[in-house]
Order: sequence, then structure tokens, then C-alpha cells
Amino acid sequence: MAVVTLTTDFGTADPYAASMKGVILDIAPHATVVDVSHGVPPRNTLAGSLMLDAVVDCFPDGTVHVGVVDPGVGGGRLPIAVRTDRCWLVGPDNGLFTSVLSRHAVREAVHLNNPDFHRQPVSRTFHGRDIFAPVAAHLANGTPLHQMGDPLTQPMFLGIPQPQPTPAGLSLHVLHIDRFGNLVTDLTFNYYRNWQAQSPDLDPTVSIRVGSRLIHTISRTYSDVAPGELVAYFGSTDRLEIAVRDGHAGQTLGIQQGAAIHLERLI
Amino acid sequence: MAVVTLTTDFGTADPYAASMKGVILDIAPHATVVDVSHGVPPRNTLAGSLMLDAVVDCFPDGTVHVGVVDPGVGGGRLPIAVRTDRCWLVGPDNGLFTSVLSRHAVREAVHLNNPDFHRQPVSRTFHGRDIFAPVAAHLANGTPLHQMGDPLTQPMFLGIPQPQPTPAGLSLHVLHIDRFGNLVTDLTFNYYRNWQAQSPDLDPTVSIRVGSRLIHTISRTYSDVAPGELVAYFGSTDRLEIAVRDGHAGQTLGIQQGAAIHLERLI
Amino acid sequence: MAVVTLTTDFGTADPYAASMKGVILDIAPHATVVDVSHGVPPRNTLAGSLMLDAVVDCFPDGTVHVGVVDPGVGGGRLPIAVRTDRCWLVGPDNGLFTSVLSRHAVREAVHLNNPDFHRQPVSRTFHGRDIFAPVAAHLANGTPLHQMGDPLTQPMFLGIPQPQPTPAGLSLHVLHIDRFGNLVTDLTFNYYRNWQAQSPDLDPTVSIRVGSRLIHTISRTYSDVAPGELVAYFGSTDRLEIAVRDGHAGQTLGIQQGAAIHLERLI
Repeated sequence: MAVVTLTTDFGTADPYAASMKGVILDIAPHATVVDVSHGVPPRNTLAGSLMLDAVVDCFPDGTVHVGVVDPGVGGGRLPIAVRTDRCWLVGPDNGLFTSVLSRHAVREAVHLNNPDFHRQPVSRTFHGRDIFAPVAAHLANGTPLHQMGDPLTQPMFLGIPQPQPTPAGLSLHVLHIDRFGNLVTDLTFNYYRNWQAQSPDLDPTVSIRVGSRLIHTISRTYSDVAPGELVAYFGSTDRLEIAVRDGHAGQTLGIQQGAAIHLERLI
Repeated sequence: MAVVTLTTDFGTADPYAASMKGVILDIAPHATVVDVSHGVPPRNTLAGSLMLDAVVDCFPDGTVHVGVVDPGVGGGRLPIAVRTDRCWLVGPDNGLFTSVLSRHAVREAVHLNNPDFHRQPVSRTFHGRDIFAPVAAHLANGTPLHQMGDPLTQPMFLGIPQPQPTPAGLSLHVLHIDRFGNLVTDLTFNYYRNWQAQSPDLDPTVSIRVGSRLIHTISRTYSDVAPGELVAYFGSTDRLEIAVRDGHAGQTLGIQQGAAIHLERLI
Repeated sequence: MAVVTLTTDFGTADPYAASMKGVILDIAPHATVVDVSHGVPPRNTLAGSLMLDAVVDCFPDGTVHVGVVDPGVGGGRLPIAVRTDRCWLVGPDNGLFTSVLSRHAVREAVHLNNPDFHRQPVSRTFHGRDIFAPVAAHLANGTPLHQMGDPLTQPMFLGIPQPQPTPAGLSLHVLHIDRFGNLVTDLTFNYYRNWQAQSPDLDPTVSIRVGSRLIHTISRTYSDVAPGELVAYFGSTDRLEIAVRDGHAGQTLGIQQGAAIHLERLI
């Protein structure tokens, strides 16, 4: 009962994701196909990388994750598949798997150049349907990866935003604003713990500056503050987030993706 | 082949629902997971309650319905699961199950405080992934509910809008405006039948006032009126609805959710 | 392991599609239900017809495709099911299956008037849930179609836009603008090949005029041109498409669905 997931920038109105599901179920009738998201902003491989990374550890070992954020389709970028210590990754070699591969070791990587595993004829503009979907289905069926193409030395990696040390503390970036208006930053709990090596737990002597507003502590959850107030907390993907309880932090603060947020140690 | 459904306010762009599906399939590989909706307006437990109620009777007996509209996550509200005469309900104890429980008897209710059935560590802001998803999967696998926590006396109930008697008839409320612009009111066919006890069927001597417009009868379906005309009918969830045939009643009438509509008996 | 797909104009916020899935899984617990799209523009049967046609050949033989774009529900239009040489089609007889049926031969067609296969009571406004979903589930279970109603002579067909010959070449129409802003036209590769009978392959001596802009050749894929430039190519559904590489052609060109595009033979 293999699981195949899809992460794309197709949106849900067009039937592109459904094409892929049809192809997968035709080859692997017992696969369970799950949408991670089709709401990756068009052509934004970094956003797709982070989105896939946010869910990959929730899925069963051996899940096949297909990513299609693929502005270079049909051009020079390679179609690839990667086996990690936890899952399979199938998609274009454009950095879409950077975040997952920064946490999971590559065991095997292949350039998907064996046409026997492609849907024919292969469209020049939709490798999701004609290469990645059939390959994912064959992997779900247990076909060995090495049959599907030549070995690949190293998948491409994107630069992922990281917190920057400042004299007063850390300069963070807003990676993503979710449906609730919560600001997801690039500060992971691990990074924070290493930075605060002397502190065994959340440090109450840190403050966070967002625009002209100051948040005086890191809380546990929304309801630690009153409705309408700003709250900072390590969210469900272990990243520092800024929210307005029962509100929309992005709109309230006028903050866009990419904005800087300052974490400062109080002395 | 248990069915697990999801009703949330997560939207479909963010991968939060996918996280839950991964967790469910990891524990219950043979479960069929179905999205009811991720379009509940953020934090609107009443809307979520009505949405889940609209579909619950379509699903097989024994379906596990997970609801996550959970602004109080990580705070004082309890995580619960309920067995009714028809289905399982899993989610926060904040009234999200009010509508279903007003029609289906509670057989067993539990405070989900046994950590053996939670994903560890439990995030303070995403019990959907770390408590409700694994509990739902274990229920789908046939694990008895009483193992998952201590008995709960009574789930919380919300006040649901009800028609109000007036000298001329009934004052109704718009519960929801759907994608077609149809206004779904709080008048159920049962309520209407009881009110019109002397009438064995739809009463042609009732009129409905929406803003400055008058609808002179209750019809069977859209095509009972000409294109562009207003039509009132008992819709697919047995509630009185107002539509514009081939149009958008909400926009045409300038009506918002919560607006009053007047049903008047003609003498 | 039968596959049942859904193509509707319900959107994804309302739980109408979920109602159908519940009904299907109640009758056919082993069916795999796949969303083609719930983003058909409300009541646009032509758009729904093209959308279903874009994916039907990706799915396994014997897939049951349910279409619900049904403004005439509960009125005079018939509920039907059709067996083709490739798949089943279930929905209203309003032309929704025109495109699929223009490519796939009808083997059997039935007016779904046997109430034994309907969910009772049948709502006047939601045959998707009460007629089409249960019929699809019974077909997925292998029940013979002829049991479900009386034979139907011929399903209804819509007029589908077609390229129009002009003195200089062909006048095309924009059928659809997708999430990437790409313009999908009514010119199929087959039509083009027949028109260019003397040319064995893509003809470099054709140009395409969109508004005041001229595209001088038909390319293979987006990356054949520089970022920001216009590109014409036969897309993944074998139709001529116009895109702006890494941009949104619809917005850049101010083009709406239905607009004319001129393909001209250079001499």
C-alpha cells in the first residue's frame, strides 16, 4: 500500500494534478495518492521545497514524494529521482528538494533518462504527467530505481534563507505567511537552541521586534496572550512564528514574505 | 476499509491537511481519507459545525470524522473524541460538533489524555497533526475509544441560529452563502412542517421577503423560475435556500451571512 | 479497484463534493475517488467538457467519470450514464460530455430512471449526490448499466469552438487561461497537421498574431525563448498555447477567454 504525494504549483482549478493521478493509478492501482499542496506560488521552487519539507516526516517510510514546480520543463534541467534514508523524491533537478535533502541523506540518485518508464509521447511542457507520475508509480510498485536511468552525482541545491547574527541577536526572515496570517520565519528551534547554548529551554529574556512592534517573550501557544495581541512561538514545523491571536499578523503588521524580523537578547 | 474525513479551516495552499493525512496513513495504511472541506472560515466553529453536519449522513456507518477549527489549541480546551450512533467525531471540545450531536446520540465521549495515542512531541499549536490524526487512525484501526483517555461527561455545545417566530410568520437567518451565491437559511424542512402543521406539503400561501424583494412561493428547483429570477426552495441539506436562477443571489441582493429573511404566511 | 473521478463546478470550500464521496464510498468501499476539478466556472458546461476531456485518457480503462455542471438540475434535462470504448460517463444530459464523446465511441447510453439505484429521497437540486454518485458507485461495483434505466438514443452535444479558416491562415479562439496565465486555444495538433498537409512536422514558416504582438515561430517549450518573451507551442493537451516565459500571458496581453488569435502562413 504505497503512498505517493504531489506538491505542485498547478493550483486546483486546472486538471493538471488529476492527469498525474490518472497516470499513477493506471500503473499502480493500489497506490494511495495524497495532495501535499498545489498552491505553491507559480515557479517558486524555494517555497515548494519548504512546503514539502514541512510534511515529509509525517508520511510513512518509503513514501514517494513527487514535486512539480518546473519552469525549465523541456529545457536543459534534468528529470531526477532520489532515494533518501526515509523516502523517494521525484521531480525536476532545480533545487525543489533542497530542504528535504538538507535533513535526509541521499542513498541513490538517478537521471530519469530511460524512456521505458515514461508515458509516450513525452510532452515538452508537462513532465509531471509523462515522466514524474509514471516513475513514481513504478517506484510505488517496487521497481528498482537504478533501472530508470543513469546515476546522478548530486542533485541541485538552492540557497535557503538562514538567520543572520547581528550585534544584538539575530536577524530573521519571513519565509511564508499562512492562511491564518501567521508569519513563519527561518529560525528553527534547533538553531535557536544552539545559539542559546547556555539556556536549557525557551529563554524568557529574548525579545522580538517586528516593524515598530516589540514582543517581549516567546510563548507556548496563541492563547498565552489576549485576543488581538501579538504572540511569538515555535510552531508546528519547529520554526519561530509570529501571530496575532484570533487575527491576521501579516495584515495587522503590513508584513510581506521576505521581511526581516529582529530577535534580540536582553541583558 | 475505514473512512476518515477532515473538516478544517486550513485552506488548501498550506500543507497542514497533508501533514494529518501522512500521520493517518502511517498508522492506518488501509484508511481512505476524504476531505470534507478545508475552507471553513478561519476560527469559525459554527460554520465548521454546519459544514460537517451537511455531509455526515452521506458517509458509511463507522466513519471517523476529524474536525480541526481550533483557535484555542494548546490552551485550556480539551481534545476529545465522541462515538455516536452513526460515526466517530474527533477534535477540540469547542462546539465544533454541535450540529451533528443535535441529531445523533452520544454513546461514548473521551478526553484524549492518553499520550500513548499521540504523536510525540505534541506541538502546542497543531493538535490536528499530533493528537487528532493519530487518534482517528487508531479508531479506524479498531482500537477501543476508552483506551485513549478518561470519560468525558458532555461535549460543549454552541448556540445554533434558529428561526424566530414573528407576528407575520418567521424571521430566518442566512447561515451561509455558497459558491453559487445561494443563501442557505436556518429554516429546516422539519421545522417548517411543524410550523405549518395544518399543511401536508409545501404551502403555496407563504411568501418570503429578502430585503426589498418578495418571493411569492416555495419552488421545487431553480428551473421552476425564469433565468435571472429569485427562487426559494428547500435545498439539498433540507434547509430553505434563496437563489437567483443562473445568477448569484448574494451579490444580486447585497446580502451577507447573518442577514435576516422574513417568511410570512398569507391569509 | 475501480477509479471514480469527479468534475464539478462546486468549488472546494463547500462540502458538496464530499457528500458525493461519502455516498460513493458507502456503496463501493473499495473505489478510489479522484478529483479532476471542482473549479469549473459555475454552470459552464463547455469548460467542464474540455476539462474532463483533458484528463480522460490518463485514467485506467473502465474508470467512471462523474460530471456535475448542472444548472438544469431537477428540471427537464435527463440524468444519464454512457459507456464508451474507454470509460464510463455519468451526469446530466446537457452536453457536459461533448468533448470526450467526440473522441470516444458510445457503446451504451441510459436514461437513469431506475430509482432503485438512487439515494432516497432524491433532492431536486443535488442529483450529484442522490443520482450520479450512487450510480457511479454501482458501476464501479460492476453492476450492468442497462439495469439502471431505459436506453437513450443519443446524448446531447454542445458546439465546441473550432479554428476558422481565413485568407491568411486560421482564426483561433482562447478556450481557457490556466493558472500560469497560459492561453489554451482551440487548435489541436491534429487539426494543424491536416491543415499543413504538405509539412511533415512543425512548420517554421507560420506566425501567430495575438493582439498587436507577433510570434514568429512555434517552439517546443518555454525555455526556447528568453524570460519575459512570448512563446507559442503545442501544449500537454495537444493544443496550441501562448505563454510568456516566467510570466502571465493573459495579464501581459490583456487577453480574455474567447479572444481571437490569428495564425498566418508566411509565403
